[in-house]
Amino acid sequence: MKLDKLFICQAFFLYRNRKSEMKMEQTQLPNWLKKRAEVTPNRIALIVRDESYTFGQLYAYSLEYSRKFNQFGIRKGNKVGLLLSNRFEMVVAIHAIMNIGGELILFNTRLSSNELSWQFQDSELDFLLSEEKYGDMIQEMNSAKVIFVENVPSLLENDEFVAVEEFTLNQIATIMYTSGTSGFPKAVEQSYGNHWYSAVGSMLNLGLQENDRWLCTMPLFHISGLSIILRGVIYGMTVILHEQFQEERVNRDIVKYEVTIVSVVTTMLNRLLEQMKEKEYPSSLRCMLLGGGPAPLPLLEKCREKGIPVYQTYGMTETASQIVTLSPEYSIEKLGSAGKALFSAQIMIHYDGREAKANEIGEILVKGPNVTKGYRNRKTETELAFENGWFKTGDMGYLDEEGFLYVVDRRSDLIISGGENIYPAEIEAILMKHEAVFEAGVTGCADDKWGEVPVAFAVLQNNVLEKDELINFCKKYLASYKVPRDIYFVEELPRNSANKLLRRDLKKLIRKD
Amino acid sequence: MKLDKLFICQAFFLYRNRKSEMKMEQTQLPNWLKKRAEVTPNRIALIVRDESYTFGQLYAYSLEYSRKFNQFGIRKGNKVGLLLSNRFEMVVAIHAIMNIGGELILFNTRLSSNELSWQFQDSELDFLLSEEKYGDMIQEMNSAKVIFVENVPSLLENDEFVAVEEFTLNQIATIMYTSGTSGFPKAVEQSYGNHWYSAVGSMLNLGLQENDRWLCTMPLFHISGLSIILRGVIYGMTVILHEQFQEERVNRDIVKYEVTIVSVVTTMLNRLLEQMKEKEYPSSLRCMLLGGGPAPLPLLEKCREKGIPVYQTYGMTETASQIVTLSPEYSIEKLGSAGKALFSAQIMIHYDGREAKANEIGEILVKGPNVTKGYRNRKTETELAFENGWFKTGDMGYLDEEGFLYVVDRRSDLIISGGENIYPAEIEAILMKHEAVFEAGVTGCADDKWGEVPVAFAVLQNNVLEKDELINFCKKYLASYKVPRDIYFVEELPRNSANKLLRRDLKKLIRKD
Repeated sequence: MKLDKLFICQAFFLYRNRKSEMKMEQTQLPNWLKKRAEVTPNRIALIVRDESYTFGQLYAYSLEYSRKFNQFGIRKGNKVGLLLSNRFEMVVAIHAIMNIGGELILFNTRLSSNELSWQFQDSELDFLLSEEKYGDMIQEMNSAKVIFVENVPSLLENDEFVAVEEFTLNQIATIMYTSGTSGFPKAVEQSYGNHWYSAVGSMLNLGLQENDRWLCTMPLFHISGLSIILRGVIYGMTVILHEQFQEERVNRDIVKYEVTIVSVVTTMLNRLLEQMKEKEYPSSLRCMLLGGGPAPLPLLEKCREKGIPVYQTYGMTETASQIVTLSPEYSIEKLGSAGKALFSAQIMIHYDGREAKANEIGEILVKGPNVTKGYRNRKTETELAFENGWFKTGDMGYLDEEGFLYVVDRRSDLIISGGENIYPAEIEAILMKHEAVFEAGVTGCADDKWGEVPVAFAVLQNNVLEKDELINFCKKYLASYKVPRDIYFVEELPRNSANKLLRRDLKKLIRKD
Repeated sequence: MKLDKLFICQAFFLYRNRKSEMKMEQTQLPNWLKKRAEVTPNRIALIVRDESYTFGQLYAYSLEYSRKFNQFGIRKGNKVGLLLSNRFEMVVAIHAIMNIGGELILFNTRLSSNELSWQFQDSELDFLLSEEKYGDMIQEMNSAKVIFVENVPSLLENDEFVAVEEFTLNQIATIMYTSGTSGFPKAVEQSYGNHWYSAVGSMLNLGLQENDRWLCTMPLFHISGLSIILRGVIYGMTVILHEQFQEERVNRDIVKYEVTIVSVVTTMLNRLLEQMKEKEYPSSLRCMLLGGGPAPLPLLEKCREKGIPVYQTYGMTETASQIVTLSPEYSIEKLGSAGKALFSAQIMIHYDGREAKANEIGEILVKGPNVTKGYRNRKTETELAFENGWFKTGDMGYLDEEGFLYVVDRRSDLIISGGENIYPAEIEAILMKHEAVFEAGVTGCADDKWGEVPVAFAVLQNNVLEKDELINFCKKYLASYKVPRDIYFVEELPRNSANKLLRRDLKKLIRKD
């Protein structure tokens, strides 16, 4: 009898719970691409390899893919991995899975097959969409079905398929892996709301013009690339998509397509300017969005001479792209600053358990509806990453009197190499796997082409070991951009009194060699 | 013992409920004006009577007001009425109350004191902010304190006041009264989220340029006016505020301040063009946002000749302004259409319990995060107004094959007179209050200046009654724009078989007289 009552009571409160959830702000928006195809069907959505597609066409393609994927067995709620290069089919596949209501897990195609295997397992994939050139990379898929986009015919029988009508903002749309202090990748959950607020925040900062065309050379498996594709659909804006960064093509297309916005990192911007030589950019180019750390003065001055408006930005996978930006009018005056938080977001500097004063260095905390709710299946890491609703970036910095952010030290001694984030701990863990290595430390060294490259320092066991052997060992486990450019064998690593590795002091060891 | 358990059980589930609410998408954004003053303090926020105020200054003023209001006793959660004209102090007061976390109830200053008294009572005001010229209108305030903005000194002692840091999107920001079929005003709750999504939806449609300046001649107590003020802060855009519509001043300021966007209704646009005569508008004017019903072809053609881009819109208090708009490129081709739903919103035509086919007339239903959650303290009316999350506008219309909306009949035979909504039922109720009137019907008649004006038809008791006496009677209870322009005494009113008044047939009676 008592039990009965309890059950009724539970049932009632579960119902209340559900009702309260329903009543709560379960904000929904129309399916973005579907809606966009209704509102402006004839606008150009995408230009890839000089082929143009309208929003109407892009949606039609995405429906065809959805139907086909549905035939393959993909259903609402399925976890669908993407291991694809920047190609038309990747954009279509992203929208097709959103039409079905599946979750997208975007994998970095530059990872080693070992790294990929680990992420495939961790993400509990139901399906993997890939292309034939990555066939070798796909090992140990267990239960997940693999579909190569080359095998998705472009004409299909008229099978019934009804796209999801609405996106719920707190539903997870995409997942991307990011490493961190631990060196182990974590799956960042990005909701539809995170992407929406990221797009809106960027628009409130940069404005939105009828003639806007955003050139994307960033990989779509990174948030810097994916966010451009999603903005395109939300804004009704043309995106010009390149498979990869090639300075000649970028400079050509900026002129050819009257591009208004380009996303770059420092090394790309350098290469663009070099290739451009004395030539001028057209006045239609209204924004060079520069990520991946503060730009050096000579580069900014060169851009000013050429009349290129540079917007520096700071952001990460966890913030669904930019969260802080510096407008061109401040780029020289506030040299080295990342700017101010976007309208919908906030920054705080945390020092010694309190909010830091102006110019006081502390950890950078961010907050806003574009910030992830956490890491999938990593309760502890998620709890550690948040404090009172603020996300702890792990980066160190300060705000000046006017509220401009200066990032003084990236999280976990992060190395940024050609726009890719490299976490030293991840490489160190691999080096230490080798039986001859006693301990190892990795840091970034300046590089003309990539900005930074990783360099390793190893203390050996008694054994003798060739540098090349250890580098080859790394190649087995790591994406090539993470493989140390050089390895120094040293007697000991610099550590502080608490025995913590001082990565910034590693470089000093080079002279001794 | 059993009771104890039940309490524990309840407490537990209340806790769970609260937790689930906390975890649910309680989206928060930074306090809009505070944040705007941090991001772009030196941009011009507002121009009133040729005085300019930056966002930094506007925020400083709003803080001063917040402090003073706080001294007057206004606290978070208080219901604060506003009976004010379009003046600087009204804008400041709106932000000041938002800083405190109070709810704003905006009253139409053109209402009669009888109408106002009713709304003051219904809204359970804690405070009323007004100005001396409306002193006579404020009767029977009961417990609410009245503050005249003239008595708020501009310099105050340095009293501590901390503005609300964040706005929660599902929190109620403002309340506006709208009448309806019943003829009784209902309090529409507008949340911060409603306003936010309205602003974002408009931006996705119209774009956002650095030089944008929006001219507002609409009263701020209407959503058409208030939404411009809020967009200004969210976009970081200059608003030029006029106390009222005067065609010479509007035309002068469009040139003087290089205005890019103006909100108008048909009658205003006619008067603007007439006053402008042969002169041209500057090319900076990129959008004439036209509300209040479809525009006639000659007017649209005149605008096209003059190169004025007209965006027709459809919206209401319940949708926090525009929800459907027609772009200029379609204004002639889709003559009479209100356009398509904004990106974040949806329209559906409902006929006979199902979704209507193309070109089939039915009730217009709308949905989106800009749509109100309902009417305060009117559970029944709220439940009747919604169906499966869709808001039933009461307006009739259809969608063509391409999804363009055509409104064929406004809700409750709505009369739109110079941008003000007039509900016949409200006037009929007043007429029938008079002892000599047996029954009454009201409809709109075309008017050169106002678009439409209300005209009444009355069936008398045995008594004899002068027309003027009845008109004077109406003036006691109704805002002057609602007072019938003319009254016809008739023998009976047109009714259908169910005895329902056929307001559209009233006009036919005029010829008989």
